Amino acid sequence: MKIGLICGGGRLPKDTAHALLAKNTEFTVIRLAGEADTDLEISANIGSETIGWGQVGRFFDILKAENCTHVLAAGGVTKRPDFTAIKMDFGGLKMIPEILRSVLGGDDQVLSNVAQMFEKRGFTVIGVLDAAPDLSCPQGLLVGSTPNDDTSTDIKLACKAAISAGILDMGQGAVAAHGRVIAMEGPEGTQNMLGRVADIKNTKRARWKKGQGVLVKLPKPNQDMRFDVPVIGPDTVTQAKQAGLAGIAVAAGQVLLLDKALLLETAARENIFIQGISAVEMGA
Amino acid sequence: MKIGLICGGGRLPKDTAHALLAKNTEFTVIRLAGEADTDLEISANIGSETIGWGQVGRFFDILKAENCTHVLAAGGVTKRPDFTAIKMDFGGLKMIPEILRSVLGGDDQVLSNVAQMFEKRGFTVIGVLDAAPDLSCPQGLLVGSTPNDDTSTDIKLACKAAISAGILDMGQGAVAAHGRVIAMEGPEGTQNMLGRVADIKNTKRARWKKGQGVLVKLPKPNQDMRFDVPVIGPDTVTQAKQAGLAGIAVAAGQVLLLDKALLLETAARENIFIQGISAVEMGA
Repeated sequence: MKIGLICGGGRLPKDTAHALLAKNTEFTVIRLAGEADTDLEISANIGSETIGWGQVGRFFDILKAENCTHVLAAGGVTKRPDFTAIKMDFGGLKMIPEILRSVLGGDDQVLSNVAQMFEKRGFTVIGVLDAAPDLSCPQGLLVGSTPNDDTSTDIKLACKAAISAGILDMGQGAVAAHGRVIAMEGPEGTQNMLGRVADIKNTKRARWKKGQGVLVKLPKPNQDMRFDVPVIGPDTVTQAKQAGLAGIAVAAGQVLLLDKALLLETAARENIFIQGISAVEMGA
Repeated sequence: MKIGLICGGGRLPKDTAHALLAKNTEFTVIRLAGEADTDLEISANIGSETIGWGQVGRFFDILKAENCTHVLAAGGVTKRPDFTAIKMDFGGLKMIPEILRSVLGGDDQVLSNVAQMFEKRGFTVIGVLDAAPDLSCPQGLLVGSTPNDDTSTDIKLACKAAISAGILDMGQGAVAAHGRVIAMEGPEGTQNMLGRVADIKNTKRARWKKGQGVLVKLPKPNQDMRFDVPVIGPDTVTQAKQAGLAGIAVAAGQVLLLDKALLLETAARENIFIQGISAVEMGA
């Protein structure tokens, strides 16, 4: 097995590459132009290429030339391409009908269509959790002090809310504080949700003691974990602190810890607990 | 029956008073200082008094002097009193232990405790819907064009989300667009939720055609409708328009229409439909 590591934006591609290196898993790096860090230097022994929007033909050529059997996409694609500026290569032009069919569905549909495009060409599509399970949050208290009874109640309640958000296919997270659901995550994302929680606290629309509530993150029940894994990182900890919460609880083994060393250091300094919870603890 | 109409802030006290007048229901107006409109002049024949924080004794004296048998609270209490400036009257001083017990519970608990304080003193606590059911949204399409199939799907989905929000005791509303739940309402309120939906649309975190999605408002399943009735008003219509939605669907008979004439006029002008839906249509 050799992995074609498709690198989008953010920290995850780097963490993934290092985890693969540590396990001696063979891979090559394919950076998405405009998204992946340009200084994403992993190791002198790891090949790397950068592809732009439209270079679909070259993309498959690289995978073949590097003898990749597996494809792993890590990191976000947040910037919309300038469609007028895309120079579609020949491989891309041939695939236009297929690509158009792919992107006409809903969000989840697009991802599974893209996966099918790879699989039809003989590649196995895997996720970060498959290739580097060590990047996920282990079960139990990882850092910080054990949640007190009130916070444990909030964890259960926020799990219930996050599961509801997942069933409704709305989002992966929820916040509860002082026995009340304060927010459920939608397309605005975790960062904006935590900003909203901070506002609610500051404007006293709901009241809780500083350091009492909790953020919970779980995958959606029908989430394709190969493309869209929930993550928390050092910024999440800082935002949880600013929102006046006690800590963060995540589905053990199913939520990635970005930039783990800094995450743990930040959580310890800010006195924010991080806990991996099992399906039973979630009430699932 | 004579009603003591306790008037908080906003438009609802005025609408309620006019509805009571139209039905020849006897009432007297008690304004909460700093909250109720000072120009809340209903009719020359209706008595009115203003009471400040701490004037609990005078409050009950007024109810007795006016021969009120029923108490109806309408409008919001958004401003927090300056506790150091409260001049507690003797009737209030006597009740301090009882008042303290009342406000130590959660939000819902406070309201039912306050109701009990009235009921122990022989008053019947009623809600706006009891006294003026005509203020609520009737069943069926009230204004605007009949929702198309996509919008009807969004109504069902937003109902599901709003019911989940209610079961979690989080809030009364939800927004769905293009087959996806975009937001569920928490303590931030409907206005902030619609602002968030506008942001999500403008930043393309979710995509839907202008005029496609829907706001749904329903009471929470365990809501005490005597104190906290969901409402929509002209501002809600304007905010729904700004959020790029097609319309608003509410639980028929259970959601109040504030400033109805202006609400209908605004909805017609902005091409925002308003629909009262039955429990069956909600999927309840």
